[in-house]
Amino acid sequence: MLNNKYIELVQVFNRNIEKIEYLNNQVEITDKNSELKDADIYIISIADKAIPKISSKLNFPNKLVVHTSGTSDINELKSTSNKGVFYPLQTFSKDKNIDFSQIPICIEAENNEDLILLENLANSISGNCYKLNSIQRRNLHVSAVFVNNFVNHLYHLGSEICNKNDIPFEILLPLIKETAQKVEKLLPLEAQTGPARRNDFETIEKHLSILQDNNLELYKALTSSITNTYGKEL
Amino acid sequence: MLNNKYIELVQVFNRNIEKIEYLNNQVEITDKNSELKDADIYIISIADKAIPKISSKLNFPNKLVVHTSGTSDINELKSTSNKGVFYPLQTFSKDKNIDFSQIPICIEAENNEDLILLENLANSISGNCYKLNSIQRRNLHVSAVFVNNFVNHLYHLGSEICNKNDIPFEILLPLIKETAQKVEKLLPLEAQTGPARRNDFETIEKHLSILQDNNLELYKALTSSITNTYGKEL
Repeated sequence: MLNNKYIELVQVFNRNIEKIEYLNNQVEITDKNSELKDADIYIISIADKAIPKISSKLNFPNKLVVHTSGTSDINELKSTSNKGVFYPLQTFSKDKNIDFSQIPICIEAENNEDLILLENLANSISGNCYKLNSIQRRNLHVSAVFVNNFVNHLYHLGSEICNKNDIPFEILLPLIKETAQKVEKLLPLEAQTGPARRNDFETIEKHLSILQDNNLELYKALTSSITNTYGKEL
Repeated sequence: MLNNKYIELVQVFNRNIEKIEYLNNQVEITDKNSELKDADIYIISIADKAIPKISSKLNFPNKLVVHTSGTSDINELKSTSNKGVFYPLQTFSKDKNIDFSQIPICIEAENNEDLILLENLANSISGNCYKLNSIQRRNLHVSAVFVNNFVNHLYHLGSEICNKNDIPFEILLPLIKETAQKVEKLLPLEAQTGPARRNDFETIEKHLSILQDNNLELYKALTSSITNTYGKEL
């Protein structure tokens, strides 16, 4: 996992050595800046706001320093090294493994040579590499919040309604799966179904009558967003 | 498809015969009430508001008349026949085939004998049969609006943001797929990630600064819904 035919992982740094001790048998680890070894690419995967400070300590002439943030501009890197971005677009949770070969990796660099270097790195991990500038990447990150964070929250709200009514959540899983698969074949604009899409106000009224508080407000907001989307079509 | 080892499809009715003519070689079709043949179960799959009127014309002693609506009570059936509900929970679009064996089918009947009859019918089509009463079914239908209709609309909003920034929508597909698959293993409550979940107000502010109008309002509403959900945990 850590190395492959094209890539040699030289070293892993963490200021808290305990967090990376599990890697000790597979790769060199360190918690000291002074012990950083020579490498072609230095990847810093840290909180966005720490990027300027941490990158300012990584000054290696003609080497490439990249961050992995969706929302941070490439210029947030305050290093004298060459700068780049290596942003894998996926949701990560400790309790769920991921197929890295499917993950889109968005790359950006200041010069073409570094872009090719990052492209090779990306292709050695995943089959999906995209060249995006910082503005595109920031917008992609917002899109990802809509299709992942907000979608998962809607799953949660659906599961809560089920719980309250003694309905097993699993009953929704085939629908969740089909909804996601559908947009591999159809545009989401074409795939839309439901009462708001067909202006079925009778059903909408029934739904409003059994919802309260937060769910009621979100139902209204999303219903009117759908209605406006297809209203615009006319 | 129309028949199987356990089920004989006797006849298909539509008031507009042209709509069912494509079935002519496989099953008897009719557009006349007077020509309805004898059967154990009469399934009416029609607009919710038409259920009382249409069902009132189907009066067959000791036979079962069922509707297929998520939001309609079993008592919307105004027939002197026995009454039931046969509600498949899935999203149907003309341009996308569906694996029926995975579709949850929710059944309800006034007596146990009819419930068993519907259970056998459901099991002959799908491996997932659930007994739900009218209140549960109505709530399930609302949940389905959240996890299907609203989710698909969020996919659309995400795709719009991509379009405006020359980013191919396909880049979001692995994330959409993983988000759906994740809740097969984890509860949505546990699967939640993103700036709102981790109270990353810096990123939220960046996102708010590049959104407008409807997207801005929905972003705020969904973000505060997530924040409130996990705030409540404390």
